[in-house]
Parts: sequence; structure tokens; C-alpha cells
Amino acid sequence: MRVAVMTAPGEVRVEDRPEPEIIEPTDAIVRLAATCICGSDLWPYRGVEAVDAPRPMGHEYAGIVEVVGSAVTAVRPGQFVVGSFFASDNTCEICRAGYQTSCVRREAAAPGGAQTERMRVPLAEGTLVATPGIPSDDLVPSLLAASDVLGTGWFGAVAAAAGPGKTVAVVGDGAVGLLGVLAARRLGAERVIAMSRHEPRQKLALDFGATDIVTERGVARIKDLTEGLGAHSVIEAVGTKESMMQAIRSTRPGGHVGYVGVAHDVHLPGEELFFSHVHLHGGPAPVRRLLPELIDLIWTRQIAPGTVFDLELPLDQAAEGYRAMDERRAVKVLLRP
Amino acid sequence: MRVAVMTAPGEVRVEDRPEPEIIEPTDAIVRLAATCICGSDLWPYRGVEAVDAPRPMGHEYAGIVEVVGSAVTAVRPGQFVVGSFFASDNTCEICRAGYQTSCVRREAAAPGGAQTERMRVPLAEGTLVATPGIPSDDLVPSLLAASDVLGTGWFGAVAAAAGPGKTVAVVGDGAVGLLGVLAARRLGAERVIAMSRHEPRQKLALDFGATDIVTERGVARIKDLTEGLGAHSVIEAVGTKESMMQAIRSTRPGGHVGYVGVAHDVHLPGEELFFSHVHLHGGPAPVRRLLPELIDLIWTRQIAPGTVFDLELPLDQAAEGYRAMDERRAVKVLLRP
Repeated sequence: MRVAVMTAPGEVRVEDRPEPEIIEPTDAIVRLAATCICGSDLWPYRGVEAVDAPRPMGHEYAGIVEVVGSAVTAVRPGQFVVGSFFASDNTCEICRAGYQTSCVRREAAAPGGAQTERMRVPLAEGTLVATPGIPSDDLVPSLLAASDVLGTGWFGAVAAAAGPGKTVAVVGDGAVGLLGVLAARRLGAERVIAMSRHEPRQKLALDFGATDIVTERGVARIKDLTEGLGAHSVIEAVGTKESMMQAIRSTRPGGHVGYVGVAHDVHLPGEELFFSHVHLHGGPAPVRRLLPELIDLIWTRQIAPGTVFDLELPLDQAAEGYRAMDERRAVKVLLRP
Repeated sequence: MRVAVMTAPGEVRVEDRPEPEIIEPTDAIVRLAATCICGSDLWPYRGVEAVDAPRPMGHEYAGIVEVVGSAVTAVRPGQFVVGSFFASDNTCEICRAGYQTSCVRREAAAPGGAQTERMRVPLAEGTLVATPGIPSDDLVPSLLAASDVLGTGWFGAVAAAAGPGKTVAVVGDGAVGLLGVLAARRLGAERVIAMSRHEPRQKLALDFGATDIVTERGVARIKDLTEGLGAHSVIEAVGTKESMMQAIRSTRPGGHVGYVGVAHDVHLPGEELFFSHVHLHGGPAPVRRLLPELIDLIWTRQIAPGTVFDLELPLDQAAEGYRAMDERRAVKVLLRP
């Protein structure tokens, strides 16, 4: 079985590894219909995160259940499923409060990687959500997007309290930020300001419902567009100190920052945060909470987040996919096993 | 007119200064029934904040309106009023959203200090709230507490989403933390854990409705009391990095931290915050939003926050009041002009 493995920063190769097997009665084996490369995969690729040992890559997945362990009853072989990047039991108090990515039994959903042909998913009962039937091919990219990048953008919009009457600004024009635009509009935001200096991404943002594009960094233009007050809601989808401060400073007092960029070397100054009066919420998106709603919106063709994939490659060309995303030639790369 | 002035860290003296006068038509002159020393006054007293020039002290006040400017109609001479430490117009979009301490016209409510006999209050129309009549003497300390320390503790509890069914922990056993306990209980919290190692403060916390006292630092004991998950809501009422991290680490994923200690030299680590999954909200309490409700609760004797004052001195002995609070001999000192 083929798996994309990162051996060092900038080095990805597709290797043969043994087929996954059921280890725990709560496991399932899923044959992937499609998988993809995440913006967060670029952190180790760029050497920002260490690569101490060869690492099977990927954590986004959608496909057909092939085998389930004896304790799994909610999904069965033959069903098409989508799951989150963290496995969760979906029954503990934290899960029931909607924070499945902090489940007390949380573990990686793709311990052997998801940029592969087949994968073992732990805690399958609480982690996987079946679609109403086998999807037509054109729905697969959108369902795959629900596994992380749509769910993460959506959580950012929810954490930022996007809703009717609100002006929402989005910091970051990667796939998560772009789908944050889509989420904010679907949640009823009146105005969505996408911050981007890249024309293809600006176009995608407009497709997803952005009402304004801001190309300048800093808060002056955002303030201009919001009567000097700042946006009600800001989605942060990068994960650097610069992007966090851009988000906090773009938000009006009493407004909400939803931050979903995985923080890297970020320290927030307490005094400025104190006087900013913003609400700050974010973290790893509890995609499992959102999946039933997102699958329904995709299945009924109310949203089409799959257009965020602007490059599709066979799994064996994963290395080229990483290069394309690293060089910002592609927003997000779909891999076909 | 006598005013308490800080001339250097550790140095407070009561000086004669000119009587305040109406400068703007939006001003009012208030004769103070009582004033007090704030925990935040200890930052410059202890040299943590610079004292570049002699500083008239104090920002908490309750008393009788003596004169109003021509633009002030909502309060009139002879009324007893309470106001917030920041003046606000109470009409701008930020005020209407409930964040009066970030009013677009915000300014200090006590530009000449409030540890004095009379003070000029700017933006009096939006800042001052009249009580239903002249209060009996025993209500004055509670009404004075509403001006800051009760309002701040209450905002901390609201920001921490304290409410029915919740377990609330309170970091900080100063007057704000203790009144955060009172607020959390009034807001319906099932369990309120006060963190304190000082017996007199523990007793006050119990009087205000704490159900548990934790004397240990760290999160082990809080986790023990919350099935290993952490509190739903944590009120932070100190303002140091240590207290902020104590608050964040004491909160369960998806829970809320309400932080009202004025941040000093705090830097929050982004990675830990990201994976904590907490909601973070706080800042200078918009006391004006809360005043009508707090005054009503005090007037109808449903709450008695004034017991937080455990030392009362004449204004001329302000220096002794600062010493008593600095040495933690007093929780909060009331000064009689």
C-alpha cells in the first residue's frame, strides 16, 4: 500500500507500507476516495516543525468503510464516510459540549497517515459520519473538504460569532480562510472582508461570498470600511503572531476573534489584549460537531467547498503537490489514491 | 479641597487642591459620600507602574450631584449617583453594544482623582446613574463598591459565562475576586471555588457564596473537584502571567475565562492557548452597562457587596489605607471625605 512520507523538511516520497488492520474493536478500516495536503503540513515541510523520524502524512479523508471492529455499530462496511483529523468517542462530557477535538479519549484519527490508499481510524463509532448514500464523483472533493478545511473555516466563523448584521473580516487567504468566507456568508454575515493580495485567491473569495477584498496589511483599511470601529467578527486562519495581532486589532471592542490557524511561536501581549475588549476563541476545530450539518449542506448542493482544490494529482505525485502548495502555485491539492 | 496624591512609589499624601469646576457643558460636579482605594492603585504604589508626576488618586465614587453642565439632563443636583471609572457617552455603537469602557469618546471619569471631597465627572449624562433616592448610610459602601470592584467582579463572572449548572473557579482573593464569587452565585452558578490562602478572605468568600475553598496553587485540586475536566468558568482577578495561566489551565476545553485583573507584563503562549480550547474575554469592566441592575440589587438589599470594605478611614489618613492594602492587612479600604 502506498503512503506519502515526509523524511525531512522539503522531502516527501511515496513509499510502500503494510496494509492497515483492525487493532482495537473500536477501529474501522476506510478505503480512501480522495485525500489532500493541508496548510499545516507545510509547517514541517518548511522546517518550522521538526521532522525527527519519517512521518506518514495527511489527516483529511473521505471514503468507503471496508471493515469495522466488533464494537462499531454506527457505521458499516460499504458506507461512504467522512471523519475529523482527531478521533473522539463523541460521548464524554467534553464531546457532548461540542469540543470533540478535546475529547478525553482524543487520539490522531490517521495514526498511519491519510495520504494513502487505506487507513485505520480509531474510535470509529464517535469519529466517522456516513453520508446518505454513495456520493457522485463531483461531490467527493467537497465531502473531503468537510474533513478539515471546511470544518476548520466554519468553526473559525462560529468562534468569531459571524451572523446576521455582522461585518466579518478574514485574515489568511489559504483554503481555511477562503472557506471561512463561505461559512461567514452561510451563517448570515452581511459583509465579509477577505484580506488577500493574490488574484486567484481573491477570485475564490468572491466566489465564496466575500463582499470586499482588502489588499493592504494593517488595520487602516478595515477601520475605513467599518466606520472606524473595526469588524464585529474576525477569522484568523494563519497561526503567526503577526496574523493574530492583525486579527485582534481589526476587531471592534466587544467583537469576536475566531482563531483556527495552528499557532506557531505566538505570544500575545496581555495589556493590548486586555484593552482590546475582544472575545478570543479558537483552537483545533471540533469538526465532528459540524459534520452532520456540513454533509447535509454539501449533499443538498447548497455549498460547494470542493472548488478550493485547484490542483488534483495522483497520490504517487504527492511531492509535486507539496511543492505547489509551498510555492503558493496551488491553494490546496487533492490526491487520488 | 483635600485630594490624595501619589508622589512616588510608596508615597501618598493628602494635599489641598482647587475645587473642581464645570469645564464642558457635559460635566457634573459630585460631592463624594465615600471613596476608596483600588487594588490597581497598588501597581504604581509598588513601583510596577511608573509615577512620572504627582498623581491625584482614585477612580471609584458615589455621592451627591452638586452642579451639572447645560447639556446634562439625565441627572440633576441633589441626586445620589454612582458612576464608572471611565466616562462614556452611552450612545455610540460601542456603548450600545455594552462596552462603555471602550466608548469612542472614553476618558477618565476622575481626571482630578476620586480620593477627594468633590470631583468633576465628564460626559455625566452617559456616565452617572442615579439611585432611586438618597440612600441610608449603611447602603453607601455597597453603592460605592458598584462603581468598580463589584462591577468588575460581575463583568468577570459574565465574561466567564457563569450561570446555572456551572462550576466557577475564581483566581485572586482581592476585592474583585471576592465579588466575582458573589456575582457567580447570583448568576446561578451551582458551585463556586474560591482560591485563597488567607483566612479572613476565605471567610468573606464563603459569606459571598463560595462552596469550596482551594488553598493550593496549580490545577490538580481544581481538576479533582471537576471530574478531571476543569471548571466551566474561571474568573481571573489578578493580572499577572501566573494568574492568567492558572485561569486558562483551570478551565475545561470549551469553557470560559473572564479576566479582569489589569494585565501587567503578561504574554500568553499561543500554542497552549490554541490547544486549551477556552474562550477568553475580559478587559476593563463596562460597569455602566451593569450599574442599573447592580444598584437595584443593592437598593432592594438582595446583595451587600459593601462588606468587602474591612477598613474605614478618614480621607486624611489615605496613606495608612495604602499601607494596609499593600501589606494585605485590609482587603479594601473605604475613605470618608
